[in-house]
Amino acid sequence: MALYVLKFGGTSVGSIDRIRNVARRVLRVQAEGHRVVVIVSAMSGETNRLLSLAREVTPVPAAREMDAIAATGEQVAAALTALAIQNEGGRARSLLGHQVRIQTDGAFTKARIKAIDGSKIFSTVDAGEIAVVAGFQGVDEHGDITTLGRGGSDTTAVAVAAAIGADACEIFTDVDGVYTTDPNICPSARKIDRISYEEMLELASLGAKVLQIRSVEIAMKYSVPLHVRSSFNDSEGTWVVAEESALEKVVVAGVAYDKGEVRVHLVAVDDRPGVSARIFEMLAEKNISVDMIIQNVTTGVEPHADVTFTMAKTDLERARPYLDEVARASGAREVRVDEGITKVSIVGLGMRSHAGVAAKMFRILADQGINIQAISTSEIKLSCLVASKYTEQAVRALHEGFGLSKERT
Amino acid sequence: MALYVLKFGGTSVGSIDRIRNVARRVLRVQAEGHRVVVIVSAMSGETNRLLSLAREVTPVPAAREMDAIAATGEQVAAALTALAIQNEGGRARSLLGHQVRIQTDGAFTKARIKAIDGSKIFSTVDAGEIAVVAGFQGVDEHGDITTLGRGGSDTTAVAVAAAIGADACEIFTDVDGVYTTDPNICPSARKIDRISYEEMLELASLGAKVLQIRSVEIAMKYSVPLHVRSSFNDSEGTWVVAEESALEKVVVAGVAYDKGEVRVHLVAVDDRPGVSARIFEMLAEKNISVDMIIQNVTTGVEPHADVTFTMAKTDLERARPYLDEVARASGAREVRVDEGITKVSIVGLGMRSHAGVAAKMFRILADQGINIQAISTSEIKLSCLVASKYTEQAVRALHEGFGLSKERT
Repeated sequence: MALYVLKFGGTSVGSIDRIRNVARRVLRVQAEGHRVVVIVSAMSGETNRLLSLAREVTPVPAAREMDAIAATGEQVAAALTALAIQNEGGRARSLLGHQVRIQTDGAFTKARIKAIDGSKIFSTVDAGEIAVVAGFQGVDEHGDITTLGRGGSDTTAVAVAAAIGADACEIFTDVDGVYTTDPNICPSARKIDRISYEEMLELASLGAKVLQIRSVEIAMKYSVPLHVRSSFNDSEGTWVVAEESALEKVVVAGVAYDKGEVRVHLVAVDDRPGVSARIFEMLAEKNISVDMIIQNVTTGVEPHADVTFTMAKTDLERARPYLDEVARASGAREVRVDEGITKVSIVGLGMRSHAGVAAKMFRILADQGINIQAISTSEIKLSCLVASKYTEQAVRALHEGFGLSKERT
Repeated sequence: MALYVLKFGGTSVGSIDRIRNVARRVLRVQAEGHRVVVIVSAMSGETNRLLSLAREVTPVPAAREMDAIAATGEQVAAALTALAIQNEGGRARSLLGHQVRIQTDGAFTKARIKAIDGSKIFSTVDAGEIAVVAGFQGVDEHGDITTLGRGGSDTTAVAVAAAIGADACEIFTDVDGVYTTDPNICPSARKIDRISYEEMLELASLGAKVLQIRSVEIAMKYSVPLHVRSSFNDSEGTWVVAEESALEKVVVAGVAYDKGEVRVHLVAVDDRPGVSARIFEMLAEKNISVDMIIQNVTTGVEPHADVTFTMAKTDLERARPYLDEVARASGAREVRVDEGITKVSIVGLGMRSHAGVAAKMFRILADQGINIQAISTSEIKLSCLVASKYTEQAVRALHEGFGLSKERT
């Protein structure tokens, strides 16, 4: 008799009919002899509807009240799901963040879970009921309602699974699992059967948005086996597991891309110690995160240093005034911003032990005539910045070149 | 510096614009130097929308889940109102039933308040913030969300006012106050300036539905001055206060009517001790409440007893099978049900000291040619059952006959 946490996203509970499907599905799992905890998101569109109401009242609503409003979406979905299970002849009860209790810090709209009390969940499932927990929400030390940020229901699911020692956490979504790359731009992309937490982290952060990255971190920390699968069929999806559980190491597990960054080029900054530090201190003070950083020194008649970095496109408008300040402070001759770039990455545990992976990546891109504007590396990831117009071509070539278009086993 | 509880119903917060009006209004009260607690209902239509969702899932939804769903309506309204106050430059925070905390029994969908902790409300208003409390909701001893039944926000308001010792509880609604009778059928009806709790109780229970009856009971028990007034203008409404605060006693304060009852006539029941007791015991066992009861014994060739009673029209369908059982058990020859009746009542503290009020009522009806089918009396109320077609005529004649069409002072 296993203990499962099953999480259903907004699309999976997007209508009364779909909620009925969820009810039947979780009852099948229970009928196999298991204890079942269900986590639900708000019905699709509901969170946006609620937040629009708040924004209609005031352009920048206070975060505490935003959370009180947004949390009702999951509250309704959880209670409706419990009712749907009862309607199918099962037994269920909804549990809200403050009822479970899911204790968070006080950072409204982006709270982090500090502790989860499993006792109410256990008393529910041990009595033969299905516990339907509202995702996305918690309470801070004052009993104020908090939310975990977009996609926070994944985090709720994995954190609950960790807290109650569940045998697995299954994430039901509208895709079949995690793919070797985006099937929309690479038709030969294949569903991955098993992948390590580490690889999943790198793929998630790079834009293969099937799982909230924090939920993968928590799953890794507490060794919760994750299963990403479709809520519309019974096929096995992708298991995200500890490295040692992988049947066979592959060099590259997947190819990701991210069009959400811009490249900033500070031309000819002062070539003296502390300049780089000052640049990135100034950006950090304004809460502007940078991703890749490249610095080089040119030689010649007038030797000087160039500093290039990438940052989120969504931060650009806010950052522009500071970029000029940064340029002045660093003595840069010019600031160039290029919005037409894409970061293409390969991810795989096998890179750690296989030499020549980087060389192979650069060769594949070079053979396509694609210029590499910047490179960054980590232990299990290699990223290249290329012109956006080459995105599809680069992804397809890397996917094919690293043998991902064949079935992994 | 007074402490006020201001309650706004669903119509008063029925749109973002109206919520803005509420915000400006409560800020005006605060600006006069008072501490302000606001109680809000769900935006009009929202509770019905939410309960329809639940009924779409299952025809008879579990009450616990119904309450979890319905309570979100007030949760959203409270947070939106707090945001609207902030948008006007004020300071406010929403407080939910479990945050306040409003402790109730566990009777989902019709819970009763057992205790209210005023500390969070005081810490909010003492800090200069407006406390916006979600009406209609509480939590039981297990932390499960409960609701107080339709109109429960009035009860929340008065109970909160009692718990924190507020100087007054103002109920903002879509009417100007309490009228001497229904203005829709009697154009000469006048707004009452002051009325006693006792009179208000009798008028509310008889259909002048401006206040939930439980809220008036609580107000009377804890001597909370109630002020029923319009949310659309600044006019004084009706103060509901203790008897001694009334400036001048009037014989009749108002004329009420109730079309929601049916008359049941058990013809020729056994004329022996215990028959009536058995009849009403059987009805009570099935949870069918009766209102007026009339029993008489006919004389003649075959002396026998007739028993007549009235009950809510809404219970009739459920009661029909039992009525036949009751008839058999009481030896009744026949059960006659008359749905075409109306209960017309006059209410007033002055009845206690003025003789002849009943005689005057009967005379007024007789002069109109209206037959009285049954009579019931209490200390401050006199009710007559008449054919429904005479409702308007009876109300107008009584309103005029008892001098209500002139201004009270």
